[in-house]
Amino acid sequence: MTATDLPAPSLGLDIGGSKVHGLVLDGHSRVLAQRVRPTEHGDAGVLTSAVSVARECLALAGLDAVALSGVGVGIPGRIDHRGGVVHTAVNLGVDRLELGPLLSDALGGVGVAVDNDVKVTALGAADHLGRPDADLTYLNFGTGVSAATLAGGRLVRGGGNLAGEIGHFPIDLTAGRCGCGQYGCIEVFAGGGQITRRLAGLAVPVTLAGLLQAADSGDADAVAEAARIATGIAAAVHLVVLAHGSTAVVLGGGVIRTAPGLVDLVRKRLDEQAALSEFVASLDLAGRITVLPAEHPLAAIGAALVGRGVPPRPMIAVA
Amino acid sequence: MTATDLPAPSLGLDIGGSKVHGLVLDGHSRVLAQRVRPTEHGDAGVLTSAVSVARECLALAGLDAVALSGVGVGIPGRIDHRGGVVHTAVNLGVDRLELGPLLSDALGGVGVAVDNDVKVTALGAADHLGRPDADLTYLNFGTGVSAATLAGGRLVRGGGNLAGEIGHFPIDLTAGRCGCGQYGCIEVFAGGGQITRRLAGLAVPVTLAGLLQAADSGDADAVAEAARIATGIAAAVHLVVLAHGSTAVVLGGGVIRTAPGLVDLVRKRLDEQAALSEFVASLDLAGRITVLPAEHPLAAIGAALVGRGVPPRPMIAVA
Repeated sequence: MTATDLPAPSLGLDIGGSKVHGLVLDGHSRVLAQRVRPTEHGDAGVLTSAVSVARECLALAGLDAVALSGVGVGIPGRIDHRGGVVHTAVNLGVDRLELGPLLSDALGGVGVAVDNDVKVTALGAADHLGRPDADLTYLNFGTGVSAATLAGGRLVRGGGNLAGEIGHFPIDLTAGRCGCGQYGCIEVFAGGGQITRRLAGLAVPVTLAGLLQAADSGDADAVAEAARIATGIAAAVHLVVLAHGSTAVVLGGGVIRTAPGLVDLVRKRLDEQAALSEFVASLDLAGRITVLPAEHPLAAIGAALVGRGVPPRPMIAVA
Repeated sequence: MTATDLPAPSLGLDIGGSKVHGLVLDGHSRVLAQRVRPTEHGDAGVLTSAVSVARECLALAGLDAVALSGVGVGIPGRIDHRGGVVHTAVNLGVDRLELGPLLSDALGGVGVAVDNDVKVTALGAADHLGRPDADLTYLNFGTGVSAATLAGGRLVRGGGNLAGEIGHFPIDLTAGRCGCGQYGCIEVFAGGGQITRRLAGLAVPVTLAGLLQAADSGDADAVAEAARIATGIAAAVHLVVLAHGSTAVVLGGGVIRTAPGLVDLVRKRLDEQAALSEFVASLDLAGRITVLPAEHPLAAIGAALVGRGVPPRPMIAVA
């Protein structure tokens, strides 16, 4: 690719429950400027936070919004990515926010694409691994568990953007009840909400990091609980490799960030499964796992990639 | 699409363990001619059968091979679809067969694409439903269980064409052992090989069709076994909808063909799961299921679609 083929810089915003991470990415996927701010909640608060971080990033990069090839936003919740509308993002206090059009108006009509935070993170991970055409799944273990898959570099969305809701696939009907009503979902094992509840209910409550320390020192209950979490994560890896054939499975989210030691237990669990089965051994499930540095802003970078080449506002409105 | 945009006719071959089904499809996806013949086994046998059926179809359609826009083949086994090579198709007695190049040579150098039979059937199903850009999964319950998914009309292949091997995802570790070595795979519940073995081992052996009759008349063991099979099929539906977001799930393969009554039990099982969970109810899993007429040659039609526009032999050799 010659210099003249390169896309103009784009802006990415990763809007989370506690902070907004913004950055400007050039055509070589280099970060020109970045800024992090606490997230204000509610419809108006989220919009204000997004606009502030966007303007600060542009000022730091010395760019005007019209110089951008576009803006991308990653945000939790149910997203209508065509209209740029966020539905029911509970952790942000948002019920329905026309974030794309409103952010575009605040930035002089530049094109804005809005997508689910887990989906943009998958794009950021593929870019970070230097494999934009990857068969890759990003597995997010936050309060809940979900996945985003790239098939040959393209996001698998499914009808209504449903693809990736694997946290609600039951793997053991004798296990506890999930928030969704079913029994033994992957999320029961490995979702942060359920884990936190179990740890708080122990005779001596511990944090997730504390649990792994206790397990390391041989506490039997801690060993069992850590194995339970690892079983859920391992099942998610197994499921996405069989369903999508993903060659790389990137693990992330609060659970992994808080307790990176879990990943060793997950690999051990997958190796046990491989010992049962030549077929599973041939898949090398453990070898497909990648954990990217926690400080690397995959979601904001993925958002900036989604923002590349988004047509300006009037074209979005009629799309 | 105007008449001049229409692709020239293509030829599709569905090569199964017992028969080869060939047909010529025009640019409107209308069948111009078709022919079915028993499959000869072994490398030479499979090639001879394929060439014979292809030539008979062309003669019936009154076409010369050079008039075709290409030839597509669907065949079980591990397929290198780029090179047109079939690896280890056990049911056909094939270890390694360069089917694409050899068939092309026999047909005057016309372009030949070879793909897995389940994958081409998904394309045939989408075409039959009039939704070539569908988010659709074809679930095949033959001796084993596997899936092929279209995301926005494009086949999800994954690395090494692995995508869709969901038959080997464990759903109940207390259930029996799978041929793959793991316990409680979906295939243990709903794979034809395992079902046949269980039915043959009953105090009074029955066929699968007989099992459903016995279950209908209230035989408790038959009810339990039928429910077990339905549980496996239902889990496969649930899994592909969560992983891929498929809006249509087409069921097929020998198990479904032999005992179409199973589909009612599968819907019942999915409705039970929906009764536990508002989330699952919102997915309407039972409503996504489609069973297409058994006499409809989905695989051969899908093969012909894969064959459309395949470049002639010399270009394949250097691809």
